Amino acid sequence: MRMYDLIMKKRGGESLSKEEIEYMITEYTADRIPDYQMSAMMMAIYFQGMSAQETSALTMAMAHSGDMMDLSEITGTKVDKHSTGGVGDKTSIALTPMVAACGVKIAKMSGRGLGHTGGTIDKLESFAGFTTGITAEHFVRQVNEIGVSIMGQTADIAPADKKLYALRDVTATVDNMSLIASSIMSKKLASGADAIVLDVKTGSGAFMKDEKDSFALAQEMVTLGNMAGRKTIAVVSDMDQPLGRAVGNALEVEEAIATLRGKGPEDFTELCMTLGTYMLIAGGAASDEQDARKKLHSVIEDGSALKKLADFVQAQGGDAKAVYDTTLLPKASVVEEIVSSKSGYVCRIDCEEIGICSLILGGGRETKDSMIDLSVGLVLNKKVGDYVTAGQSLATIYANDRDKLASAKERFGAAYHFTDQPVQGSGLIKGILS
Amino acid sequence: MRMYDLIMKKRGGESLSKEEIEYMITEYTADRIPDYQMSAMMMAIYFQGMSAQETSALTMAMAHSGDMMDLSEITGTKVDKHSTGGVGDKTSIALTPMVAACGVKIAKMSGRGLGHTGGTIDKLESFAGFTTGITAEHFVRQVNEIGVSIMGQTADIAPADKKLYALRDVTATVDNMSLIASSIMSKKLASGADAIVLDVKTGSGAFMKDEKDSFALAQEMVTLGNMAGRKTIAVVSDMDQPLGRAVGNALEVEEAIATLRGKGPEDFTELCMTLGTYMLIAGGAASDEQDARKKLHSVIEDGSALKKLADFVQAQGGDAKAVYDTTLLPKASVVEEIVSSKSGYVCRIDCEEIGICSLILGGGRETKDSMIDLSVGLVLNKKVGDYVTAGQSLATIYANDRDKLASAKERFGAAYHFTDQPVQGSGLIKGILS
Repeated sequence: MRMYDLIMKKRGGESLSKEEIEYMITEYTADRIPDYQMSAMMMAIYFQGMSAQETSALTMAMAHSGDMMDLSEITGTKVDKHSTGGVGDKTSIALTPMVAACGVKIAKMSGRGLGHTGGTIDKLESFAGFTTGITAEHFVRQVNEIGVSIMGQTADIAPADKKLYALRDVTATVDNMSLIASSIMSKKLASGADAIVLDVKTGSGAFMKDEKDSFALAQEMVTLGNMAGRKTIAVVSDMDQPLGRAVGNALEVEEAIATLRGKGPEDFTELCMTLGTYMLIAGGAASDEQDARKKLHSVIEDGSALKKLADFVQAQGGDAKAVYDTTLLPKASVVEEIVSSKSGYVCRIDCEEIGICSLILGGGRETKDSMIDLSVGLVLNKKVGDYVTAGQSLATIYANDRDKLASAKERFGAAYHFTDQPVQGSGLIKGILS
Repeated sequence: MRMYDLIMKKRGGESLSKEEIEYMITEYTADRIPDYQMSAMMMAIYFQGMSAQETSALTMAMAHSGDMMDLSEITGTKVDKHSTGGVGDKTSIALTPMVAACGVKIAKMSGRGLGHTGGTIDKLESFAGFTTGITAEHFVRQVNEIGVSIMGQTADIAPADKKLYALRDVTATVDNMSLIASSIMSKKLASGADAIVLDVKTGSGAFMKDEKDSFALAQEMVTLGNMAGRKTIAVVSDMDQPLGRAVGNALEVEEAIATLRGKGPEDFTELCMTLGTYMLIAGGAASDEQDARKKLHSVIEDGSALKKLADFVQAQGGDAKAVYDTTLLPKASVVEEIVSSKSGYVCRIDCEEIGICSLILGGGRETKDSMIDLSVGLVLNKKVGDYVTAGQSLATIYANDRDKLASAKERFGAAYHFTDQPVQGSGLIKGILS
């Protein structure tokens, strides 16, 4: 078999066989196929697409390119959750303790942030001492003991995907549905959970801007998961404006904690309830939607979800006191209001601009090696549909550097859009696929 | 400017500007754009194509990526000739002395063979001592003195094309009309001739199998040459069967010499007359076709074309006696006839199979570093349209190794196709573009 012939085949619009895809991934991972051939192949795939069979073969080949996590020592159904990412997406921090408090085992791998979107691991490090750099043994033991653990993705999970994604990222071959779906699902399958609940974002702040594309991606991933024998459910949710109100690491943790106390923003709370519902059903802890929602409400009301977060933080070396006293979280030295110069209904908030404000303040990574300032960010006081009078606060901004603050405020100016007519929000949950 | 953005632009079907193409070629030649980005770009170009403006910009950028030969010290109009290559194509060896004998200056760069097609330099090395490794000064002086010189292509002529072609060759991105045309023409433009006559082959043994594609390539190259201020003419000629009868280095030289004596095969002689006609007209040595043909006939009849070859060979260190006594050329130790097992009209001769026979015998290069046996090859005794009786010789085969001879004979079996009905040849010259 020669990679040249496979490129030629795909270029001509033919399907690659399972054996050909396995050869390609195995040899590429072992550095026996050069990047320049693989990037030509990725561009050919961009133009010619992949069939469901090819996408499945690619996903399985990448999943098996490194370690397949063995979670068999964890009793019960292990449920994983994945978000395609967005601005203000602190879902895992509130959701996983809620679900674990209802008795479903959460064994999850997470990543760090890059660019204008944040990562769960960075956010969790707002708890002094918290680490995701734990061993597989620790991970398994912790899930058995307290029901939830989040570890960093190791280099040995789907190394083919890691290498391939890095190449696609610099060769303009990222945005192909089959390649995106197989990249996400290869890691999820290698991570070993029995059931996977996917949060597929849609809208201007999401990777998939178009709702039809988001549904297609969700469907593709659900098919891939189910074909691999994992119960897979996808929730398509809105990312046309930032999720909740807080954007920035410690600020988002604070909002997640408020949510676990029943005092979170409406949209964020609803997303956690929806995702939690399907995680409970997939994990066998609820019989139906109504039952699941009742249980999720109850662990918030009785404080057991909040306690689960504290236990989780403590089990991974973090300062659990901060769960009950958020003044212990990192704090910015400068807090200012951004007041509106206009009056009107907020009709649009540009997610990317808000994410970039946080990045400018120091809350995100420009490059992989950037240091993060966990304390900085923004809390939005007005969201889409709200009426604002000139002079009212649009957002509270948290900074540690006057120059960065000035840059962020300037950038913020372009994020809010107003109209004279009342605006109807577009609805948070767009659909459920399974 | 970022290569990533340029890939994205081309992927989306937009045109790249002259500045963008210049940036891409300059940075790639300087190793500041990696192969994996360039191969993704080449695949995007394969699918989205390039406009005439883009192709011209690419051609000029590659031509200027290294030295531009300065032929200003050669008096008169310098004419170059280029063939897109085929089996049995010894045209340069007969044609250039013919044209030079008529008073047109030929300053030509040539290459070596790879795979089943041979290279002019290899063939010329059949003259003991002949070298194309001459200095630019020698080259210019020789053209001024005897009217013709052929030198090897130096590394400094269009290095961008050299690097890019090597990449395209391993990433299945060779066969795009704009990329092929710009690759050929960038080298021709950098080689410095005032006029260029192109021999674009068409048919099963040509790079372009389809006649329509061959005409399109010819037109594209003519446009590129004329846009760059060089008088450019293309002859589209048949390569549905090997050109002439001899295939193999010294055997082809012998056939070229016979042609200069007026005793060459009909098709090969006609091709030399046609290409020569346009070279004479472009070089100002003939007023029209009739005048040109008369002059070309006359230099064959009076022996001055043959003498020009001898002068040319001697000027580049070769044994000119072999021009007059071809027994001095390299000779194979084993000569055998391949007899036909069938009777019928020859309806097709597979060029590639015949080329591979010569390659198997040792007459070609499997890889860039292979050594060549100049003496081996085949002489076809029957061509398309000829009637063969079982037991008659189809070809004479020249070998130095019994095993290789046996392999070549086996391969030869698949090359000839027969029919019961008389066959009309398809005509050598398909068209002229200027």
